[in-house]
Amino acid sequence: MRIALAQVNLHVGNFPHNRQVILEAIDRAGSTGADLVVFPELSVCGYPSRDLLFSDAYIAACLETTTQIAKHCKGIAAIVGGPWPNKEGGGKKLYNAAFLLYDGKIQHVFRKGLLPTYDVFDEYRYFESADAFRTVTYQGLRLAVTVCEDIWNPRKSGMYAIDPPALLSREKPDLMINISASPFAWDHLPGRLEILSENARLHQLPLFACNLVGGQTDLLFDGVSAVFDPQGNLMDTLAAFKEDLRVYDLDALDQIPAKPLPHKPEKEKKWQLIWDALDMGLRDYFRKTGTRKAILGLSGGIDSAVTLVIAVNALGPENVWAVLLPGPHSTQHSIDDAVALAENLGVRHDLISINDTVSALENSLEPYFSGTDSGIAEENLQARARSIILMGLSNKFGHMLLNTSNKSEAAVGYSTLYGDMSGGLSVLGDVYKTDVYGLAALINKEKEIIPSNSINKPPSAELKPDQKDTDSLPPYDVLDGILYRLLEENKDADAIVGDGYDADLVKTIIRLLSQSEYKRYQTPPILRVSPKCLGVGRQMPLEGDYRSIIHVRGK
Amino acid sequence: MRIALAQVNLHVGNFPHNRQVILEAIDRAGSTGADLVVFPELSVCGYPSRDLLFSDAYIAACLETTTQIAKHCKGIAAIVGGPWPNKEGGGKKLYNAAFLLYDGKIQHVFRKGLLPTYDVFDEYRYFESADAFRTVTYQGLRLAVTVCEDIWNPRKSGMYAIDPPALLSREKPDLMINISASPFAWDHLPGRLEILSENARLHQLPLFACNLVGGQTDLLFDGVSAVFDPQGNLMDTLAAFKEDLRVYDLDALDQIPAKPLPHKPEKEKKWQLIWDALDMGLRDYFRKTGTRKAILGLSGGIDSAVTLVIAVNALGPENVWAVLLPGPHSTQHSIDDAVALAENLGVRHDLISINDTVSALENSLEPYFSGTDSGIAEENLQARARSIILMGLSNKFGHMLLNTSNKSEAAVGYSTLYGDMSGGLSVLGDVYKTDVYGLAALINKEKEIIPSNSINKPPSAELKPDQKDTDSLPPYDVLDGILYRLLEENKDADAIVGDGYDADLVKTIIRLLSQSEYKRYQTPPILRVSPKCLGVGRQMPLEGDYRSIIHVRGK
Repeated sequence: MRIALAQVNLHVGNFPHNRQVILEAIDRAGSTGADLVVFPELSVCGYPSRDLLFSDAYIAACLETTTQIAKHCKGIAAIVGGPWPNKEGGGKKLYNAAFLLYDGKIQHVFRKGLLPTYDVFDEYRYFESADAFRTVTYQGLRLAVTVCEDIWNPRKSGMYAIDPPALLSREKPDLMINISASPFAWDHLPGRLEILSENARLHQLPLFACNLVGGQTDLLFDGVSAVFDPQGNLMDTLAAFKEDLRVYDLDALDQIPAKPLPHKPEKEKKWQLIWDALDMGLRDYFRKTGTRKAILGLSGGIDSAVTLVIAVNALGPENVWAVLLPGPHSTQHSIDDAVALAENLGVRHDLISINDTVSALENSLEPYFSGTDSGIAEENLQARARSIILMGLSNKFGHMLLNTSNKSEAAVGYSTLYGDMSGGLSVLGDVYKTDVYGLAALINKEKEIIPSNSINKPPSAELKPDQKDTDSLPPYDVLDGILYRLLEENKDADAIVGDGYDADLVKTIIRLLSQSEYKRYQTPPILRVSPKCLGVGRQMPLEGDYRSIIHVRGK
Repeated sequence: MRIALAQVNLHVGNFPHNRQVILEAIDRAGSTGADLVVFPELSVCGYPSRDLLFSDAYIAACLETTTQIAKHCKGIAAIVGGPWPNKEGGGKKLYNAAFLLYDGKIQHVFRKGLLPTYDVFDEYRYFESADAFRTVTYQGLRLAVTVCEDIWNPRKSGMYAIDPPALLSREKPDLMINISASPFAWDHLPGRLEILSENARLHQLPLFACNLVGGQTDLLFDGVSAVFDPQGNLMDTLAAFKEDLRVYDLDALDQIPAKPLPHKPEKEKKWQLIWDALDMGLRDYFRKTGTRKAILGLSGGIDSAVTLVIAVNALGPENVWAVLLPGPHSTQHSIDDAVALAENLGVRHDLISINDTVSALENSLEPYFSGTDSGIAEENLQARARSIILMGLSNKFGHMLLNTSNKSEAAVGYSTLYGDMSGGLSVLGDVYKTDVYGLAALINKEKEIIPSNSINKPPSAELKPDQKDTDSLPPYDVLDGILYRLLEENKDADAIVGDGYDADLVKTIIRLLSQSEYKRYQTPPILRVSPKCLGVGRQMPLEGDYRSIIHVRGK
């Protein structure tokens, strides 16, 4: 049997597009003599459809599209993903299913059993969990087909009580197929390939796994579909961050040399992965929202510099507009650095002073502010004046405003709501400041694109004279170390202190993180590149009392 | 047996507070001779704790608090709610549990089986579903204790395959107890009491149901705990929207005259419920975030007028600051109406013109806007200038900015991101414009507090000369009729057209609703008073293609 993996980029709710992508891939696979072509999870509608799944019209379109694709399957079979009505009564109305299509019809429906409902996942909101799993025979071979999470519990140590591949293996299948929409995080791939390998090895079956590729708002899918032999050796992986289609002879798998499983990426490899993910994510968000042009405020600092380079790379210099918005405390060197970068990239750049707007605001507020110490309120006026000018240009000319905040400052609330927290998309919101430096190093590897001054000077919001980020925050390597343990590692205060961080500092950082939940509640969608993004995957109470988690024993 | 229902208002994560509230209620119940006192769902930690439940320190605090409360239970038993570790391995790490406490110890743990994961609920994100349910004997009586949703599937017609009370009734219990955190919606109570009645009737058992009261950010809990006799007759309900504690003699239930079950509230009753809910919600959000003072922009229109009255009622006139922010297209009558309202209420009011700020912005943008037609971009400058001034005052003096948008305009995106969409809390964001008029009528019932002109004039954003909302939108009764069918009734386009609405208008409204998802993604938390709020309970893709649900057959 010849099996094709069709790693395609789909668009939620865009049924004509998804159908065309799938039909073209079936034809391409067919032209190579493939007997079976495998698509990602929920491919007919795209992933995640979220509450569109509650619309009867939407489910009807899913089923109609599945039927249309089935009609196209003559002389070739396809496995596509889509929702399937739960007709047995009891439980949620839908299953998350894989369909085996051939001879013009839906021949078999494989229903997903393990429904991820944590971090960014909310599948139990929509789907009933299957508790029975059956193989099906096609061209004399017995197929064990699972959907994404179903293969993630081989040791039954996870969040679920069952292991669908073990249940399927009782029927003595000849091969395993997994269709998935497993989102990217910079450290996710080794674990994903390892769990696939473990499934192949445990059941001594070849395994063909097709993963989604493309960005869908905040969620980024890196593809890297994979094939394993019955010993769990990695035979091949498909492309990362782009569409790919490859065909394999089941009988000739043993002639492919095994590849090593990847390790957790270090430094430069990590930054390259993050770069690729952000590039795809920005590109796809613009394409899928039908937006061509971006605008951003260019400060001369490193965050907006890196954001600009990513945007120019994804959209083309002709589609990106950089606006310098100097204010009363901006430095000339920042302006020079911003201009130099814009010229290096060949993007339109304009300079619009915020001084008159800030003066008008200060005059209007003078009767009330008079006699108070200048502080956060005055600083925020500047950040918000920038936002209002950028949004004015965005509204007038249809450019989407890119948010340039990084994860470190977003985490501790070192940012202005409706000011620099504005935008249609946050590009660096899941990238720690220390990794923003890594991205800058990557960008400048061949030649200096970002002026070295933007990289080397002490970070500053330039909202008051001689301001430095370190006036309010610890050095970023320390801050990021604490934040990484809190967010990605979900360590509590005691454990972080046990790692050698100062107890008072740890308490301060948890307090800042908690106190700024209300700001992040209103931030734009953030391209997710880590296992714990400060977006929909982290849902904290706004008026909760956080003392129990701030507490450090013995302090 | 004497049973007390302790309908208390708790604070997420505030363990000292919750413990004190619970211990005091135990003492009060004990002083009336009660044998058992029943508290709401997840009472030790508050509801919903969201991702705080992923913190080991938080769970430790939950268990410690439960243990402390148990130690207090001498000569009296209490049923409290809290998380409980899943020690059996397999599945999520926690159960949502009810604890029977007496003789200083946790005597029994009842685990929740049906985990709501829809609309605003995400319990399967945190909890494993129990599949075994056992009664327990206390003072010679066999208690069947369930947690909230567990009683909601008596016909097995819902989202779940099992019916816990039916499983418990096999053990021949003597009475049923349900602890819940069932959030308010204006039409929710009749259904909740009916399902409780049905459970009592089906199993021919008295039923004591204790529901949470209080606001927790967007989620509002109305209390109205209830007691039913074994025939399903409603014996008593506790207070709505406030704490209450009542004691019942189990043997004397038949001496209480039965009360009628309520019907779906009409008009004035509905507005009164919404008023009460918003009042409690605003009050509790301020109290639980430790905020005392509110600020808002007062336009002379009905939305900000109603918001102001609610805020003054909840926080006191001395804690609310109304700011009039007239701009180039504001009318004198609007200013007069705003001043009259502020004076009627006795709140501080100041007038800050936005004209200089708008002029400065327009001058700064003139080189770019020159030669274009004035439109949305120019209008948004005004809305954002207001926001920046209000936020300046908020940052300087610590007042929380109240958002004054209503549900109708939020739904169709007739609002400015970072402008009138700003704020720390949206008071009317789940109230349709037609119901805002209802609230105004209620406010003015005894005497004219809101100037009649604010109510009777055609709604206008006053962002360009002679602007009316109806320039862009259908009349609000038509708009709200379509939106109600789309949101609350989840009807598709065909069904709404079938209800007599114009097909093109229905398509336009769905398009506007879909196109403005990106704006609502960044709105403040909205006090939820309907069964489908445009907040966390409705999660739509930002770059989804909505054509399949906009489509109307035959058009």
